Amino acid sequence: MNFCSHCGAGDLDLRIPEGDTLPRFVCPRCATIHYQNPKIVTGCLPVWEDRILLCRRAIEPRYGLWTLPAGFLENHESLEDGALRETREEACARVEIIDLYMVISILHVSQLFVSFRSRLLDLDFGPGTESLEVRLFDEAEIPWEQLAFRTISRTLRNFFADRLRGAWPVRRSSIATKLRTPRAEPWMA
Amino acid sequence: MNFCSHCGAGDLDLRIPEGDTLPRFVCPRCATIHYQNPKIVTGCLPVWEDRILLCRRAIEPRYGLWTLPAGFLENHESLEDGALRETREEACARVEIIDLYMVISILHVSQLFVSFRSRLLDLDFGPGTESLEVRLFDEAEIPWEQLAFRTISRTLRNFFADRLRGAWPVRRSSIATKLRTPRAEPWMA
Repeated sequence: MNFCSHCGAGDLDLRIPEGDTLPRFVCPRCATIHYQNPKIVTGCLPVWEDRILLCRRAIEPRYGLWTLPAGFLENHESLEDGALRETREEACARVEIIDLYMVISILHVSQLFVSFRSRLLDLDFGPGTESLEVRLFDEAEIPWEQLAFRTISRTLRNFFADRLRGAWPVRRSSIATKLRTPRAEPWMA
Repeated sequence: MNFCSHCGAGDLDLRIPEGDTLPRFVCPRCATIHYQNPKIVTGCLPVWEDRILLCRRAIEPRYGLWTLPAGFLENHESLEDGALRETREEACARVEIIDLYMVISILHVSQLFVSFRSRLLDLDFGPGTESLEVRLFDEAEIPWEQLAFRTISRTLRNFFADRLRGAWPVRRSSIATKLRTPRAEPWMA
């Protein structure tokens, strides 16, 4: 943030406003305080019998790696509608939400990742514009070394463990740091 | 948004970028796309024996009305840490999180409201700078007509119903519209 989006002034101050506790960008001309807050990534974990639907990314970051359908929640959209939309856009797939499953605070990028267990309604799916390939994987086939994000490996590990136990608590956790290596092993995540 | 926060240009275009599906503010000079996304409000439902801790707001909106401690999640903060911080700031109270409880998409203001059931750890609480008064209420004492937001009345109604049933599912819902009257009855929310 270099300029005030309200009045166009440059030289924004980065300071703690009166009554606040954290530094914010404050406009020296019109006094607008520019708050910056985490974004929500919402998506689905689509299940068909004993298999999971994954998408291979056609976009950066992590081009070519596998992910669950998910993306940024839009203004005026519910968490559930966002998850269904992303699943439709990325996998051309229709699902029915079963329940909220993963809630992961990703601190270093200021994102909240939310994923819903959902039932794939038919096998009429395929790559949307952001995917190279979409397919179903059973547990033994999951490409653990080719998963795009730690949220995805964590979601899948929880899913297979909970399926074995037959219990589906909402799984809350945080990811606090960048991976140190450019291409770390996803099972370490 | 009147000016590009990256390069300071005015006359931002409001248009659907290539490959996108929704209109965004796009800078005609530096081509930066300015995405706008929902914000997260995180907080606690602090419980002490059969009573709930509420705060009377010392700030607008809804000055003088009762609320649960909650506020905007900050960058680089987990959902849980944000809830504990807001509870400390608004009620000077220390709680221990029991579990995620409410997840409400508030569509007309593009906010996601999240609240955790939590155990108040001691009776050493009191108004922070954003509260006029902080006190414990049992079910019969809840000031239903003086609650600040529909998220709060919905959270409390769910809490008392679920306490009676002895079951604590995560409660997901949406609020889609503005209240039509300036001061509606909270039990209609």
